[in-house]
Formats: sequence, C-alpha cells, structure tokens
Amino acid sequence: MPASYVYLGPEGTFTEVALRTLPESATRELVPMVSVPAALDAVRTGEAEAAFVPIENSVEGGITTTLDELVAGAPLMIYREVLLSITFALLVRPGTKLSEIKTVTAHPAAQPQVRNWMKANLPPDVVWESAASNADGARLVQEGRYDAAFAGEFAASRYGLEALETEIHDAENAQTRFVLVGRPARPAAPTGADKTSVVIWQRDDHPGGLRDLLGEFAVRGVNLMLLQSRPTGEGIGNYCFAIDAEGHISDRRVAEALMGLKRVCLQVRFLGSYPRADAAVAEMRPTLPGTSDAEFVAAADWVARCQDGRF
Amino acid sequence: MPASYVYLGPEGTFTEVALRTLPESATRELVPMVSVPAALDAVRTGEAEAAFVPIENSVEGGITTTLDELVAGAPLMIYREVLLSITFALLVRPGTKLSEIKTVTAHPAAQPQVRNWMKANLPPDVVWESAASNADGARLVQEGRYDAAFAGEFAASRYGLEALETEIHDAENAQTRFVLVGRPARPAAPTGADKTSVVIWQRDDHPGGLRDLLGEFAVRGVNLMLLQSRPTGEGIGNYCFAIDAEGHISDRRVAEALMGLKRVCLQVRFLGSYPRADAAVAEMRPTLPGTSDAEFVAAADWVARCQDGRF
Repeated sequence: MPASYVYLGPEGTFTEVALRTLPESATRELVPMVSVPAALDAVRTGEAEAAFVPIENSVEGGITTTLDELVAGAPLMIYREVLLSITFALLVRPGTKLSEIKTVTAHPAAQPQVRNWMKANLPPDVVWESAASNADGARLVQEGRYDAAFAGEFAASRYGLEALETEIHDAENAQTRFVLVGRPARPAAPTGADKTSVVIWQRDDHPGGLRDLLGEFAVRGVNLMLLQSRPTGEGIGNYCFAIDAEGHISDRRVAEALMGLKRVCLQVRFLGSYPRADAAVAEMRPTLPGTSDAEFVAAADWVARCQDGRF
Repeated sequence: MPASYVYLGPEGTFTEVALRTLPESATRELVPMVSVPAALDAVRTGEAEAAFVPIENSVEGGITTTLDELVAGAPLMIYREVLLSITFALLVRPGTKLSEIKTVTAHPAAQPQVRNWMKANLPPDVVWESAASNADGARLVQEGRYDAAFAGEFAASRYGLEALETEIHDAENAQTRFVLVGRPARPAAPTGADKTSVVIWQRDDHPGGLRDLLGEFAVRGVNLMLLQSRPTGEGIGNYCFAIDAEGHISDRRVAEALMGLKRVCLQVRFLGSYPRADAAVAEMRPTLPGTSDAEFVAAADWVARCQDGRF
C-alpha cells in the first residue's frame, strides 16, 4: 500500500495545517488534491493510503460534499479526526492598504465567519467572489486577480503575501473538524474518549420515525454529537442521516445501539470509531447510569439466570 | 411438593370459576384461602404448589393487594393467566322480590360494575355494604345479614340462593385477569403469544425518567399491556411500576429490553413469562419491523464484522 496521504489542497489550506498536527503525517508523503471527491477517490482506488478532508464546521455544520461522498460509493472508514480553530487573516500583496481593497475572495465556507468583520472594516462597495479554497484565493491574489483573500495566516509566506489583519473570526471559538479517511479496516482500539460515525436510512417515513431511531442511542445512554440530514436523491423529503455518537463500537452500549439501528433501519453504513479530538471535554460529561460495559455484562448474566429459572 | 393450588376464596368466587378453566386444576386439590396474602404466603412457605389470585380488572385496573404482594417479599413467579368475563347476578333468598331489597353487598371491586344497574333497578334508599368477597356476600345473604348480593350466578346453588337478575354489568366486556403464581422456576417455553411481567424501581426521579424507562421496551418493538404504579412506601411521590409486556423472556427483543431495565433501574423484579390468555388478539397485532429473533442475530453478526474490520 502506498504510504501517501492525500488532502484537500492546494498547499496552504487549513486542511494541510490540520493534517500536519497528526504525528503519522510526518512519515507519509502528503499530496494535495483539487477536491474532496478526488481525494476520496484516490483512497478508493488504492492510489493513496488515506485522505484528509474537512467534514464539519462549528459555524456552518456538516460539510455536505464530504458527507455525500462518504454516504455513497464504496465504503470508507474514518480513522482519525482533528479539530482546528479557524481564524482568518486578510492577505494582500505587500504594500496594499485597507482602503484600496475593491475585491476579496475566499472559500464560500469562510464568508459567514468574516461577514461582520468585512462590513465593519472594508469599503461598503467591496466585491466578494468565491474561490475553490482559501489557499487558492491567496494564490489568485498573488496573481493579481483579487485585491485580498481571507485565508490562514500561514498561507501568506507561501504565496508571497502580507497579512493586513489577523485573528478575524465573527464567531468565537470557530472550529473546523477534519477526518482522516481510509478503506475499511479493524477500528483502532478504544481510548476511553472516542466517537462513532454512522449513516442511517429510515425504512419508511412516519411521524416519530426519527425520534424512534434516535431512541436507539438515548435508551443506551449514548450521546449524539452530530445529526446531519442529507437528501437520498429519491425526491423531496427523502433523507438519510449522518450521526456522530459518543463512544466506540467496542463499547457495549454503542454496539447495542448500532445493532438496534441495523435491525430497524432500511440501511446503516458504519463510518468508523476513532479517538475524539476533544478528549478533555469528553471526560467531563457525565454518563448515564447503568450503561458501563460491566453493567451490560451483569444484565446479560441476570437475564440468562431468569431464562434458566435461577433468580 | 404438595400438589395443591390455593385460591382466593371462599368457594364460589369468580376466582374459583376461573381456576377451574385451567386443565391442570383437575389434577390438584383446590384449597380456598381467606385472602390474597394468605394464598401467596402458602406458596412462599411451600405449603401449596401455586396460588390463583386476581391481578387485573378491565374496569378498575390493577388489583393492588395482589400487586403489592408480588412486589415485596420472597420472589414469586406467574405461571399462567386466565381471563374471565365478569357479569353479576343479583342473588337473594328464594321468594325475595326486587322491591323488598333494603341492603345489598358484594366485594368493593364489584361496585363500579353494578352501580348504574342499581340506580336504575333498586329502591333509591338501598344500603350498600362491602363484603370480603362476592361469594362471602352470598353467604351473608344466606345467613340473613343482607337482603341481596351481587355475585357470580354459579354461587346461587352453593349458598341456597336464587338469581333475581343475571347478566348485570355496567361496562361492556368487563373482564378480570387472574394469575397462577408459584415459586421461581424456568419459565414455560414460548407459545408465540406470551406476556412478560416485571416490576421496576427508578434509580432516581427526574423529568422524563419513566419515559426513558419505557423507551427500553419501545425501542425494541415490545408493546406494553399494563403499567401500574405502586407506592414504594418511602414517602409521597415514590413509586415503582408493574409492567406487562408482550412477548417472552426468551424472545431476543424482550430479553434485551429487560437487560436494559436491569442496567438503568435501581431494581428490577422478574415476575415471569407465560402464555397470553387472549392469544387470538395477540396474533392480530403488527410487530415492529426489525425486531424478530433472526434480525437480532443478523445485527449482532454485522456488528461483530464491523468490530473486526470486515464490512
């Protein structure tokens, strides 16, 4: 298997910065790809060992391109996640003044995070145009296509630009979540602060249907961390749901919840169990009584005794 | 073990009639007892093989004396249930006319089932007094203590009385449910139309607590047939819950629901799995998709494969 990680490029994206926080990235060749589908396809074909892509944003929610790619096609599995605080810098060609900026660019996902700052600080007639990525926006500024780009401060040196402003973020604690995606394999052992991702398709749409499906988690004390509806492509109102749940598939409560979904859903796609990037937060959250592995084992023993008349 | 069944006496109660519908009663000595606690104690001490007592009434609900006896003390188990349609006869000493009735008696549970009939047919100044049982009321009429008793028509000949009226029942289809209770043993094999009884104690009282506990059944497609709260004796607002659920403890969905309760409740008491008396009704009720034994097994296999990286 080729020891390369592909990622959403070009060089200088937040994605690359997040990827470099993973220790294992130091021993791999890191290859930028033009899009999320291209990166994931490289994994499916075996061209790359894994792909590193954004999947969730604390301001905008799930990143639909990535979710849709994971929902369809050959199964893939999430191995790791990385959380990166997102603050933007306003990058310009050296010498450009704030008052001279007529056009700005960035990835569309950046817009809601810089909108208020733009209103307060840039000329009212400034024109926004979308770029394929924040890094690509920086490249276009270098080429003279736009006057300024919102991007990571780290992109400035790469594109010969200057950061006029830094720490730009409308929302406090804006974060983007990235995942390292590979082909199906045995999930890494639980760390005690893990997360499990699945996609579920309802058998039929009826009142309370989703509530019932979420009950599969709730009744076993499994907290949900993400619920993102995605159209199935079979007409208005037809959705599947991408769900992140606390815990590891080797935790009894998580395994039983997944078994429950498997029984009652039309389809369930397992997307992996992997260490939480916010492990410290996970440890602070109280768990539901009676949902430890030991309690699951004791309860199974008790029912076996009842079934045998020894209670 | 003595081959005797005790039952709530005296002779001539609805309980005795219901008991005699069980084929196994023909081969046992049937012994009337003065009360439900006395009958159940005879089982606990080993004096009797089993006790036959009323537990639920379609007009009044759970029969609290019986429930409280099953909830506390040494564990007992329900082996069988019998449903009996309850219609009353008005029993009098031969020759008594309707207009001559000044006093009537019956078990208190009978009152709501004959109240309307009494208003319409008996003198307005008639006095009601409670008897220990309907059969005992008939005996008291025989002795001249009361003018009339509401009881089963079958009690007339036993106490030398005459049925002035029969088929008295305010509520259509009034039924009482009786159970045959013995010491813990391996439950009888499932028949395909079974019922499982448990008592649960919440770990703590919090908003949504009971809803969450009922979710243990709902999420696994197990219908509930009885939910009866009973005070725990630890102060106002402290209750346990007697629950009858459709299905047998050897059904995967029922076993998993019980395991769930065992994990999250302060205490769970298993009261038995036994054939439903209304088997025909049970077969008409649709089951929740994905909750068959085969689907539980397939789901467990699938999670095992996911845990092993083979999906």
